[in-house]
Amino acid sequence: MNLMKIAHVPPVVVGLDAMVSDAVHLMVENAVGAVAVVDSQGLLKGIFSERDVLRKVVHYNMRPEMTRVAEVMTGSVESIDADTAPEDALRTMVDRHFRHLPIVDGRGHVQGILSIRNILQNRVEELEDSISSITSYYAADGPGG
Amino acid sequence: MNLMKIAHVPPVVVGLDAMVSDAVHLMVENAVGAVAVVDSQGLLKGIFSERDVLRKVVHYNMRPEMTRVAEVMTGSVESIDADTAPEDALRTMVDRHFRHLPIVDGRGHVQGILSIRNILQNRVEELEDSISSITSYYAADGPGG
Repeated sequence: MNLMKIAHVPPVVVGLDAMVSDAVHLMVENAVGAVAVVDSQGLLKGIFSERDVLRKVVHYNMRPEMTRVAEVMTGSVESIDADTAPEDALRTMVDRHFRHLPIVDGRGHVQGILSIRNILQNRVEELEDSISSITSYYAADGPGG
Repeated sequence: MNLMKIAHVPPVVVGLDAMVSDAVHLMVENAVGAVAVVDSQGLLKGIFSERDVLRKVVHYNMRPEMTRVAEVMTGSVESIDADTAPEDALRTMVDRHFRHLPIVDGRGHVQGILSIRNILQNRVEELEDSISSITSYYAADGPGG
């Protein structure tokens, strides 16, 4: 399974000078939990997520329409490329407590945003499929059949 | 696996008259994405989640310190009991797009809050364990060994 099939593609993107209120409207309209924040060249500068809205904006009583995304985004985020194995991406997200991970190409442009929810759900489906093929192999044609 | 071992137990709880800002402080301090909203008898009246903060409070520019949780919570939520099979709880959450599901006892008191993130992660671990026991059974002692 290719990561691009699991991720939200194309990503929802805002510029560094966007306001928190604009980013939240985009998140709600696109039903996503995070947006990529990019500079004027389209290069990834950070991720702004639901968690940032709660832990920073609302928790510290900042005004969404008067706060720039650049002030409250999660900067210096890790990213992966589209060829990363889904299991490796999942392991990184679980171990590092990332809910979202941007997929970036060789030039630094964001291609998609992976959410732990989607990758876990995909992994459950893959593992269930593996179990049914293993058991049907041994039941029907395999060495134990 | 018992659901109570996967859920956030005890649940983080607020009263119907709590303000959104109070609920968000509790969510941040307890690192949870949802709180149970209960009446003065402790009975479940709704769930207030990160999603409600984004889609209602921030999206419609409401002031967190002037908005009661009761106005913006998700009321009439479904709940499950502690004996529900984890696979059934997961199926309900995936099919109905619930991110959180309260576990309620026979008297209507909330015992814990299940998050789809935790239940999916638990399901991945269980399925990985199943695959290794199936494969080691056939490799070593099973009919194909």
